[in-house]
Amino acid sequence: MESYNSEGEYIESCKRRALLPRGFLASTTSLTFFPVEKKVPDAMKMNLSLILLKEKSPLFAAVFTRNAFPGAPVRIGKELLSRDRVRGILVNNRIANVCAEGGVEDARLILAELGRLLECEKYDFFPSSTGIIGWKLPVKDMISSLPSLIEGLQDESIFPVARAIMTTDSYPKVRSFLHGEGRTVGIAKGAGMIEPNMATMLSFILTDVKLDREGMREMLHRVVEESFNRISIDGDQSTSDMVIFLSSGKVECDSVVEYEDELKELCRKLSEDVVRNGEGVGHVIQVTVINAPSEAIARGVGKAVVNSPLVKTAIFGNDPNVGRIVSSIGDFVGNSLAGNTELAVSPGFIRIASGLLFMERIAIRVGKKMVFENGVFKIDEETEKFLSDYFKDCALDSEGKRFPAHDRKVEIEIDLGSGREESTVIGSDLSYQYVRENADYRS
Amino acid sequence: MESYNSEGEYIESCKRRALLPRGFLASTTSLTFFPVEKKVPDAMKMNLSLILLKEKSPLFAAVFTRNAFPGAPVRIGKELLSRDRVRGILVNNRIANVCAEGGVEDARLILAELGRLLECEKYDFFPSSTGIIGWKLPVKDMISSLPSLIEGLQDESIFPVARAIMTTDSYPKVRSFLHGEGRTVGIAKGAGMIEPNMATMLSFILTDVKLDREGMREMLHRVVEESFNRISIDGDQSTSDMVIFLSSGKVECDSVVEYEDELKELCRKLSEDVVRNGEGVGHVIQVTVINAPSEAIARGVGKAVVNSPLVKTAIFGNDPNVGRIVSSIGDFVGNSLAGNTELAVSPGFIRIASGLLFMERIAIRVGKKMVFENGVFKIDEETEKFLSDYFKDCALDSEGKRFPAHDRKVEIEIDLGSGREESTVIGSDLSYQYVRENADYRS
Repeated sequence: MESYNSEGEYIESCKRRALLPRGFLASTTSLTFFPVEKKVPDAMKMNLSLILLKEKSPLFAAVFTRNAFPGAPVRIGKELLSRDRVRGILVNNRIANVCAEGGVEDARLILAELGRLLECEKYDFFPSSTGIIGWKLPVKDMISSLPSLIEGLQDESIFPVARAIMTTDSYPKVRSFLHGEGRTVGIAKGAGMIEPNMATMLSFILTDVKLDREGMREMLHRVVEESFNRISIDGDQSTSDMVIFLSSGKVECDSVVEYEDELKELCRKLSEDVVRNGEGVGHVIQVTVINAPSEAIARGVGKAVVNSPLVKTAIFGNDPNVGRIVSSIGDFVGNSLAGNTELAVSPGFIRIASGLLFMERIAIRVGKKMVFENGVFKIDEETEKFLSDYFKDCALDSEGKRFPAHDRKVEIEIDLGSGREESTVIGSDLSYQYVRENADYRS
Repeated sequence: MESYNSEGEYIESCKRRALLPRGFLASTTSLTFFPVEKKVPDAMKMNLSLILLKEKSPLFAAVFTRNAFPGAPVRIGKELLSRDRVRGILVNNRIANVCAEGGVEDARLILAELGRLLECEKYDFFPSSTGIIGWKLPVKDMISSLPSLIEGLQDESIFPVARAIMTTDSYPKVRSFLHGEGRTVGIAKGAGMIEPNMATMLSFILTDVKLDREGMREMLHRVVEESFNRISIDGDQSTSDMVIFLSSGKVECDSVVEYEDELKELCRKLSEDVVRNGEGVGHVIQVTVINAPSEAIARGVGKAVVNSPLVKTAIFGNDPNVGRIVSSIGDFVGNSLAGNTELAVSPGFIRIASGLLFMERIAIRVGKKMVFENGVFKIDEETEKFLSDYFKDCALDSEGKRFPAHDRKVEIEIDLGSGREESTVIGSDLSYQYVRENADYRS
């Protein structure tokens, strides 16, 4: 558990974590542009950032959104995975370059110029964009900014980039760990969406630890599956989400197994940071489903609960409305799991591919307190008081604050009592502020 | 299109529609009770209603929630389907009788007494309950109220019942139609949930038109599938949802095919009424998906869009954020449809069981205006202005009003361009009021 008393205290802790691993440079700059989409254009500001390997490296991996309308950076990035080596990542905020005419060509024009300036090729850089979708990148202005971006390169800290990639984030997010002599640092932005942005979840992880190229790609997939892919704020996966993992390979790895555990922990912390900083988030909610017939069922139940607007609003209001948890489990099991055949649900259990799921065996604990067992609620006034106090204690009260007060979260455990698999998902409550931030008209 | 200028005008229109078909009686009463769940009990009020056939009838059908934690009334109701004849429905609000210890036994005690008073059996009545879940019914108080309930039976109007079954509904919902000499009337309550209620969706449809017993059951399933099962406010199906359809069989049916169409129209209107009266609903949203490879895909895309918190909040804010519609389609196709294999999504199309779904062929119209085509947005300032005005025109401004001002809705059409199937789903926006109503602590 960590807590911070002031913005300064939080920023200092981020800066301490933000030291660049060996072999990396970073820079950021900002530019002003006039969007072509506006008849009467208003000047807008964009941050442009560069994460650069001192030398090209074959050690890189990436995981992209599964959204079937991917943005231009995702389309280009997927192609780069077959390259022998890459040099770095060029990131902009403000415009996401999604479903805009000629978006791929525009990104390539900018990368080609970056390649020319750094004596590389346009295929040596991952592009990454977040912001308004449907709009075109200000290609000329971005190209004009590249020389000053390159001039600003430094080898000390990723912190300025962590701050520059923010859109609606209220604070930067940086996590790091040491593995022997090696150093790994990760930054992230997003999620939750604010108008007019699709709040892309971007994360960049840099290390000087030497890993096997294929092994590192498989490792990233496994790690993302158990961290970034376990968070859910809007229930939506945006058109531009990506996690990029680069290694300079300067330091030998002591233990790949241990490294993977440490990387998973880093990604879990970053993904919780992302949820905690989601727009209008008042509580972080963690749902752990245990003793499930399959991991997929565990994850499905967890997501159904953590995405239920009714569960989310109840927790926002510090309301011990356990009925909504029960109802969302029942809805998932009866509808999504059992499909559309009413016959599949017998009183007491449902037949699923892997066997039987006994509804009467389901037990629910909130804040470690048993609230539902044997098909009946275990709720009296005392329990309601406990739950309400527990929710209040986990509340973030983040309105107006530009730092997280603490990293406590509401913990819900659902014991399905019908197997040995489990899954944990992280989500957030649903607040007035969420609606306000997501409803305001572009201006 | 209908519109109402005052509560009185709306109520009058409901009363005109509410005439009982031949062979039916109805009554409602209210009672005060002290919930056993409270250590220091506060008196609470409950409405109890009875819908009674003058004589037992074999012509009855029911569709129940698929939620795998069904309430006691759903458990009992499912069993009744195998009975030869039934006499009616006993409905209470305030307590839903879900996951409460001995809930089935409690409901049976009350029905047994009702049966004794009416010289029937306890198995002759559908029980129906809506309200707090986890609490026990006030069995004694309910039994004490039965004589006055029976005394109040009248054969004129279902309107008092339509009003008595309301929980958080702000106005009663009644629809009816004539078929030759026959009369059919339907009432509904719900949906959307307000603390501490699980806003059960209840609908009771009464007719004097004579139908075939099995045919009427199949008809109800088909009709519900295309009406009540196409609405989605919270994304959740509650533990107590039910639709009961009773016929006194007094009037011969001219045309069963036409009757089914008329019944479907009645159910669609009732289900739209339910959405329009959902807590904090500012806009009703209708998503029609056409030219889909399958009906299931059409419905899935429609539900993904209509349930997306981001689409919902944008429409609440009258914000023409078409990007969110595109993103939610892409998320559904890339994740739910393509499953978890990233490989299934190729640039431009995805392979599905029934063939190919070409992403570039997807076109989106909002208010009949094309806003997305060939993978690119068709949005300029004029279109944005049109959309914003269109959303404003569809807004309900229902805050504080106890009647619906009009029945306009936001119409979104998604043309998948990859097949011939279609589906229409109805949902609502996401407003401050929704969060407020769903977050307030029980008191």
